[in-house]
Amino acid sequence: MKSSVTEVEVKVKAAKIASKKLAYLSTDVKNRALYSIADELIANEKAILKANRLDYAKGEKAGMSESMLDRLLLTSERLQSISSDIISVATLPDPVGETFDMRTLPNGLQVGKRRVPLGVICAIYESRPNVTADISVLCLKSGNAVVLRGGKEATHSNLALAKVIQRAAYQSGIPEGAVQFIESTDRALVGQILRMREAVDMVIPRGGAELISYVAENATMPVVSGGIGVCHTYIDRDADLDKAVNIAYNAKVQRPTVCNALDTLLIHADIAQSYLPMIAAELGRANVEMRCDERAMKILKPLPSLKLASVAEHDWGKEFLALIAAIKIVDSIDEALEHIERYGSGHSEAIVTENYTAGMRFLREVDASCVYVNASTRFTDGGQFGLGAEVGISTQKFHARGPMGLKELTSYKWIVLGDGQVRP
Amino acid sequence: MKSSVTEVEVKVKAAKIASKKLAYLSTDVKNRALYSIADELIANEKAILKANRLDYAKGEKAGMSESMLDRLLLTSERLQSISSDIISVATLPDPVGETFDMRTLPNGLQVGKRRVPLGVICAIYESRPNVTADISVLCLKSGNAVVLRGGKEATHSNLALAKVIQRAAYQSGIPEGAVQFIESTDRALVGQILRMREAVDMVIPRGGAELISYVAENATMPVVSGGIGVCHTYIDRDADLDKAVNIAYNAKVQRPTVCNALDTLLIHADIAQSYLPMIAAELGRANVEMRCDERAMKILKPLPSLKLASVAEHDWGKEFLALIAAIKIVDSIDEALEHIERYGSGHSEAIVTENYTAGMRFLREVDASCVYVNASTRFTDGGQFGLGAEVGISTQKFHARGPMGLKELTSYKWIVLGDGQVRP
Repeated sequence: MKSSVTEVEVKVKAAKIASKKLAYLSTDVKNRALYSIADELIANEKAILKANRLDYAKGEKAGMSESMLDRLLLTSERLQSISSDIISVATLPDPVGETFDMRTLPNGLQVGKRRVPLGVICAIYESRPNVTADISVLCLKSGNAVVLRGGKEATHSNLALAKVIQRAAYQSGIPEGAVQFIESTDRALVGQILRMREAVDMVIPRGGAELISYVAENATMPVVSGGIGVCHTYIDRDADLDKAVNIAYNAKVQRPTVCNALDTLLIHADIAQSYLPMIAAELGRANVEMRCDERAMKILKPLPSLKLASVAEHDWGKEFLALIAAIKIVDSIDEALEHIERYGSGHSEAIVTENYTAGMRFLREVDASCVYVNASTRFTDGGQFGLGAEVGISTQKFHARGPMGLKELTSYKWIVLGDGQVRP
Repeated sequence: MKSSVTEVEVKVKAAKIASKKLAYLSTDVKNRALYSIADELIANEKAILKANRLDYAKGEKAGMSESMLDRLLLTSERLQSISSDIISVATLPDPVGETFDMRTLPNGLQVGKRRVPLGVICAIYESRPNVTADISVLCLKSGNAVVLRGGKEATHSNLALAKVIQRAAYQSGIPEGAVQFIESTDRALVGQILRMREAVDMVIPRGGAELISYVAENATMPVVSGGIGVCHTYIDRDADLDKAVNIAYNAKVQRPTVCNALDTLLIHADIAQSYLPMIAAELGRANVEMRCDERAMKILKPLPSLKLASVAEHDWGKEFLALIAAIKIVDSIDEALEHIERYGSGHSEAIVTENYTAGMRFLREVDASCVYVNASTRFTDGGQFGLGAEVGISTQKFHARGPMGLKELTSYKWIVLGDGQVRP
């Protein structure tokens, strides 16, 4: 144990030292490193997928749920998509050094802000090995060193990815030590990192509720957390029903194991009679279990071949991560807004409506990271939003909210250019 | 005790409830409230200054230091300046609702960010009663409710100010409960507030190092802290010596009791022989005690009527808050940068130079909230930077850095406008 604790300290401190050089590295060098990482991940596909198969087999043997196994799985296509996300990040503007809000004061002082890296980012994550790549490249591009600590389910995959990333990065001129990977998955090591306030500037926990609250409670440095997505789609009285079917279906079915998938479908009573059978037929074909409130059940029960259940109180506000949807009929947009305020996790919420006032009101009043009018909540994603990739999705209001890309990994300093001004 | 704890809970929860209405309040109503507060503070000058005299007399009797007494003091002029700062805030654009970074994605989705209030801000502060007004109006304008807890030195002043602010605000349409003032200065109550994670969205401690570290260690919600200013001015070899005299003199003497005042003067050896006697003469006339390193002492000792002392190791990195300056001769800009990195508190740092490369290098390499070329560090202030006023000066990198005005009291949500888009 003792030697592991020391190993963590050594790695985190090395990251801190590397971060000082990394902060001034030219955009060219950083981009070259990203292109090289993207190439090398493809070049090393065989080794990476082999390592992933070890994790997957172990997960299957341990009786891991289907959703967890899906999150764990790497395929040639997924690796290709990780690699192209890295290239997207390389093509984005470098946030570091950007000067903004610059103005000239009446006394001639030029005052503005200049974007700087945060320093050392520590990511503590579970399951999805693509996080190893996404977070590494976003940190490097934004001039931050990174300490990676993945979950034990994905040890082999993460290690294989991290090795490729480190080698490609250092060979391209990134300072040695800028990418640290903690191999041991001993929980005590996380506690150790969370006490290193001087060396770690931000911690990003990505994973289940338990991990997130452990990190929030024990970290001595700033934490950006999120990821728990209890997402609602509200079909308004004035919805275009075809759009409403497409959007709700996509939100639930396209990838049910992730945080931005639909959990609860809220339907205005006035259109429930026509809309609910339409969407239920589609969800039924996709084998979605529908947990209905009384009124929804009354409409759907007569219909054939649907997987129906009565909703329980604890299904509201639940993140299913599976082909399950809770369904509730509401009498007004007010009732929908109240339900979302009460049960939502502040992640992604959508309204489907052709009514201008309803749409604007939903946008204004829903207190969530991402609020949608007439689109699927599945778009909540750094890549989809044009950030190239994401280090996570923040459901907090402090520092950064929603998908976090390059800019969210930076701070700024005020710069003041004078020619001798003094304060009167 | 028990009743006070309950009182705090009641007040904080009332602020939370008010914050929900405040979040959507129109700019007109908020501005009207600010103008009314500005007027009423002047209209109630007599009562406010009378209350302040009670605190001042108590402070004098208790042997409070001159710098503390100066921070505590309200005068007709200072009240006037508080009032005009409030009017400046009223004239600033409302940050809430601002939509930014909006773009249309290839699939036609419009994605952007909309600025929203944080919710409830709690300010825990010492001495300076103007903080009561500054923080209240910045919070109200940015749509946040505020919980104020001032220091015991200023109880009477703060209460008098808070009462005027509350009355003027509520009469102008601000929801009742949006401005809460905790009268008791029992430290246990602060602990109580710091545990109310669900109700308080951000805590701002303003005061001495002890207060700040108590809050940082005990808060369960985000904290923005700062205020400790160990500020250096470095006079480069290529400085314009007249500017260098004016800037260093202003930084030290104009108001020595505040955080952005000069603490240590660093002087390049090549110009020390000519510059040091010039600045020392000025500082001497202002009765500044100069704590010199060996080389500076050698230059200044022969000169008449200066208050000289040998610098001690613990004077480097010390915030004097008084007419004292540490003076060090350095052999290069590198040595100056190293000294600042080692002893600075990340607040405000300045270089005086006519050399382009030296100026640019200082801007890039100094890791502080505010970095100056050829101007006095005394400008680090929300009002001076055009923010109208400030809730504090953050020396952290997370969320906000440097003077914090309206924007720094907000978060954002992503808004996504579609016409039926689903994720492929």
